[in-house]
Amino acid sequence: MAFVAPLRDIRFVLNELAGLDKVRQLPGGDDIAPEIVDAVLEENARLLQDAVAPLNHAADRQPATLADGVVTTSPGFKAAFREFVTGGWQGLSHPTEFGGQGLPKLLATPCVENLNAASLSFGLCPLLTDGAIEVLLTAGTPAQRALYVPKLVDGTWTGTMNLTEPQAGSDLSQVRTRAVPQGDGTYRLFGQKIYITYGEHDLAENIVHMVLARLPDAPEGVKGISLFMVPKFLVNDDGSLGARNDVWCASLEHKLGIKASPTAVLLYGDNQGDVGAGALGTLIGTEHRGLETMFIMMNAARFAVGVQGVAIAERAMQQAVAYARDRVQSRAVEGSAGPVAIVHHPDVRRNLMTMRALTQASRAVAYVAAGAFDFAHRHPDADVRQKNQAFHEYMVPIVKGFATEMANEVTSVGVQVHGGMGFIEETGAAQHYRDARILAIYEGTTAIQANDLVGRKTARDQGAVARGVIAAMRETHDALLSTPATSVAGAGLADLSDIAHFLATGIADLEACVDYVVAQTKAQPREVHAGSVPYLMLSGYVHGGWQMARAAAVCRDRMAAGDLEPFLTGKLATARFYCSNILPRASALRTAILDGSADVLALDPDQF
Amino acid sequence: MAFVAPLRDIRFVLNELAGLDKVRQLPGGDDIAPEIVDAVLEENARLLQDAVAPLNHAADRQPATLADGVVTTSPGFKAAFREFVTGGWQGLSHPTEFGGQGLPKLLATPCVENLNAASLSFGLCPLLTDGAIEVLLTAGTPAQRALYVPKLVDGTWTGTMNLTEPQAGSDLSQVRTRAVPQGDGTYRLFGQKIYITYGEHDLAENIVHMVLARLPDAPEGVKGISLFMVPKFLVNDDGSLGARNDVWCASLEHKLGIKASPTAVLLYGDNQGDVGAGALGTLIGTEHRGLETMFIMMNAARFAVGVQGVAIAERAMQQAVAYARDRVQSRAVEGSAGPVAIVHHPDVRRNLMTMRALTQASRAVAYVAAGAFDFAHRHPDADVRQKNQAFHEYMVPIVKGFATEMANEVTSVGVQVHGGMGFIEETGAAQHYRDARILAIYEGTTAIQANDLVGRKTARDQGAVARGVIAAMRETHDALLSTPATSVAGAGLADLSDIAHFLATGIADLEACVDYVVAQTKAQPREVHAGSVPYLMLSGYVHGGWQMARAAAVCRDRMAAGDLEPFLTGKLATARFYCSNILPRASALRTAILDGSADVLALDPDQF
Repeated sequence: MAFVAPLRDIRFVLNELAGLDKVRQLPGGDDIAPEIVDAVLEENARLLQDAVAPLNHAADRQPATLADGVVTTSPGFKAAFREFVTGGWQGLSHPTEFGGQGLPKLLATPCVENLNAASLSFGLCPLLTDGAIEVLLTAGTPAQRALYVPKLVDGTWTGTMNLTEPQAGSDLSQVRTRAVPQGDGTYRLFGQKIYITYGEHDLAENIVHMVLARLPDAPEGVKGISLFMVPKFLVNDDGSLGARNDVWCASLEHKLGIKASPTAVLLYGDNQGDVGAGALGTLIGTEHRGLETMFIMMNAARFAVGVQGVAIAERAMQQAVAYARDRVQSRAVEGSAGPVAIVHHPDVRRNLMTMRALTQASRAVAYVAAGAFDFAHRHPDADVRQKNQAFHEYMVPIVKGFATEMANEVTSVGVQVHGGMGFIEETGAAQHYRDARILAIYEGTTAIQANDLVGRKTARDQGAVARGVIAAMRETHDALLSTPATSVAGAGLADLSDIAHFLATGIADLEACVDYVVAQTKAQPREVHAGSVPYLMLSGYVHGGWQMARAAAVCRDRMAAGDLEPFLTGKLATARFYCSNILPRASALRTAILDGSADVLALDPDQF
Repeated sequence: MAFVAPLRDIRFVLNELAGLDKVRQLPGGDDIAPEIVDAVLEENARLLQDAVAPLNHAADRQPATLADGVVTTSPGFKAAFREFVTGGWQGLSHPTEFGGQGLPKLLATPCVENLNAASLSFGLCPLLTDGAIEVLLTAGTPAQRALYVPKLVDGTWTGTMNLTEPQAGSDLSQVRTRAVPQGDGTYRLFGQKIYITYGEHDLAENIVHMVLARLPDAPEGVKGISLFMVPKFLVNDDGSLGARNDVWCASLEHKLGIKASPTAVLLYGDNQGDVGAGALGTLIGTEHRGLETMFIMMNAARFAVGVQGVAIAERAMQQAVAYARDRVQSRAVEGSAGPVAIVHHPDVRRNLMTMRALTQASRAVAYVAAGAFDFAHRHPDADVRQKNQAFHEYMVPIVKGFATEMANEVTSVGVQVHGGMGFIEETGAAQHYRDARILAIYEGTTAIQANDLVGRKTARDQGAVARGVIAAMRETHDALLSTPATSVAGAGLADLSDIAHFLATGIADLEACVDYVVAQTKAQPREVHAGSVPYLMLSGYVHGGWQMARAAAVCRDRMAAGDLEPFLTGKLATARFYCSNILPRASALRTAILDGSADVLALDPDQF
């Protein structure tokens, strides 16, 4: 069914929670006018609603196919991709010197969200190209950048990330793909890579693979892995295409979801091309330091996957709301003349509120983290930059882990709202459920995110960033209580003491667990990591509660000032629901973390 | 991958928690010897492990197909079904006078569980036939019973339930299929039924459809619906098959899961058969009272679907455990010489413990309810019968709702344990995730179960049954504390005060919500029903905690008596994990129910 970009909520989050007004005015951003912001959001929404979203369901039924080494994407993808890149959307946040728009991450984030809401399978191609561009900008030579980045930005070519091998999934130290120096600055690569998203396709003239591999003299482990750029077709100095390189798509995976996104097994050095045996590539960055470069990009990719979670949740919610309004079934529980639309039934209402609250809270959490990225990169004050950088890095595993686990729940509730129809593929609700399931897995499973949150983001700085955030949450809490309920029509609504109560509990839960992680990670690493995913989820729930509480305060103040926009009462009601119905989950997680970690580890493996 | 029936846990639950020893000796059960119990469990397990489980994954890839009105089931299903019915398994719990074994429900329950663990898609056919047999035993005439039941019991024929129509899903009052009396005791049916599981197939010679329809003079609503038996082929008085009836499979649904189970759209009265226009059928029971008969059967079916939840969770868990033991990836968090099997990683351990604890707790909850059914039907004391009947009826929505929602979680965790492999269909984990998703929908969604639990099972008797259960839970709690920790090797394990603490909290949560439901259902029906699914889930978590606590006490006592079986320490550790890591969710649900119900309903439908 149709997708409508949720621009009202997006604008609220951008402006009221994530600081777009300040981001617009940061140096290097050309003081983006509000009209530009509006034009970007509206043009982007129009394109995705009209050209991409309508393809999503049919593409699931007609996934990409492989024949004779050639991958044909789903019907309509090629034309839609042309429209997308021609509109300049691939370059939205990339530097103007390479043909991009140079817009802040905060403004690019809703565009990424809407792209993925329109079609997760389609959105993955630009997402991976973003990653390749980031790699080149971060670690490429000037020549590499000049030759490749403009073509990636304008969509003539696309990019991929080649990390995984059968024995090297979460553990990239096990990468075995070999890179043999040719003495002329080039390398020949030999090996097999799996799970390569858009590793082969027909959307663009060339595909630029970023590939982790080992040099012959490489030390064992993660510090012996280098990063190479391997184009499908070699690129001449003038940017024209040369010989077909020795990288080949051996098969496409048969997946649970995102079926229209071709997931390739790629063979390097199968001696099928025009270049002899071994795929020709060039080194990116320093020898043996490839993983560091890849991790810079992976932070951006992890954030983007979190935004994919928000996106698929929004799409599933819109579909469930439309169905619930339309489907008439059973009388009202309080009595009614005849059957009513199921949106009237309290349990359906609970389902829709759950979808709405989780989606909106996750959106706010993600966008606030995006705003911090811009402050970290563009603010004139080094101290502000450093603080925002630390906050952004702390938020990345939370955004990725929480928003994707949330998406699993929201899309499942979406199926449930449809009843039996939800289980029938024609309806589309099941597709969202299937598509969403990869998000908590790829770019690092939730457990990998949780390890990052525990180790690098909480324990390493002795909880400094986390405690700074907790202090900010307490300020929000106090502000909820400090302003008296006003006497406007919504006086009852405007008393936020209930939200303050739930938020206070959530903050205390978070603080107790931060203290535990800081105190015990070294002494009891297994126990702390047994509670790492609960700690991540608890953090997500409380961050969501914080942002929803901030939103509630904004709504109250606006309403007190006489603003009668229905959106405000809806937002306030959603914040309230989040705090009373969702946020209490944090307390259950706190118990599991603090009192139950040893119980996780009590069995011997052979007792299972 | 291979499935092994979890007989050790099944025996523990049957004997220690569900009272098999007493059930064995109930009148009418021929004082079943323990050797018979063993033979049933072992023979059943062998058949399902060897003949059914191996078909499950391939059947998902080659679902039932429809061509020219004929449905061909997945490869191997026909032979496996013959083996299943030839072994007498269809008749396990049906009366001996019709060729069944007459075994108690408690002993049939593990067989149903293992059947569905072997293959949910395959297991649905016998499940539906059980329903048809129940209908005939409950409401059929002696002639109908004599003619049909033996052929259903021996698997010559199978049965279906025809309830749903496009406009009549959860709300059966909207059924429009017409039944026209022919003046000779027969009726001709006209209409369309959807979601008919095994509505057409090639496993048996005939299919006996139980169909809800309206007589011409029927009053509006649920009290105007009658139940008819419509065979695919008419049945002559000697049991031989006659003319092809006018009921036809128009299409099969393209579903998210259980793909090997043909879900048919059936047309009645399409004038394609040998009998003229209108499918010929006979009335079952009384005119206009068909829904009451159907509900008797639906109670059994709902219980069976809950057991399907336990089954698919067990299957997913076995697959995840095997993968976690086999897959080597990353070093241990506490340090290790090289990469270790992922079962060693604390988060994987948490995932496996979550799967294990939810599965075993749900199994215990379901089996205890099955035992009550047998006491309700066979105990010589009317008071005991009545109490057990009330308890069983109270448990049915909890078993159905909780065990199926639990199955969604467990199968999702199963995917997660597999990482990227979990998203690839070849692995099989994704199939369990897809297959499980129907369970919380069919035979009444979780919301329908929750309405039943709130209205008929809690509010109607002013919480009498629920409070009786709470009193029994308190006895368990006290017993956990009353026996001092023993001095055997497992002394630390044997101190159950932690389990008692968590159980006490859970009991208090349940009691508070029972009080609320009893007090407020009439006064605030919308608010109470807004919390109905949380109330059902809270009930499920606390019932699971109760049974796990009972199990822990048994293990402690056994260990104190010198029993060193490793199963006992494993069970005790699982009970402990359940109480510290899972049971606290009840408190979060309590908050949502008691403090958050009004927030569920705050938005107008047009504000979504």
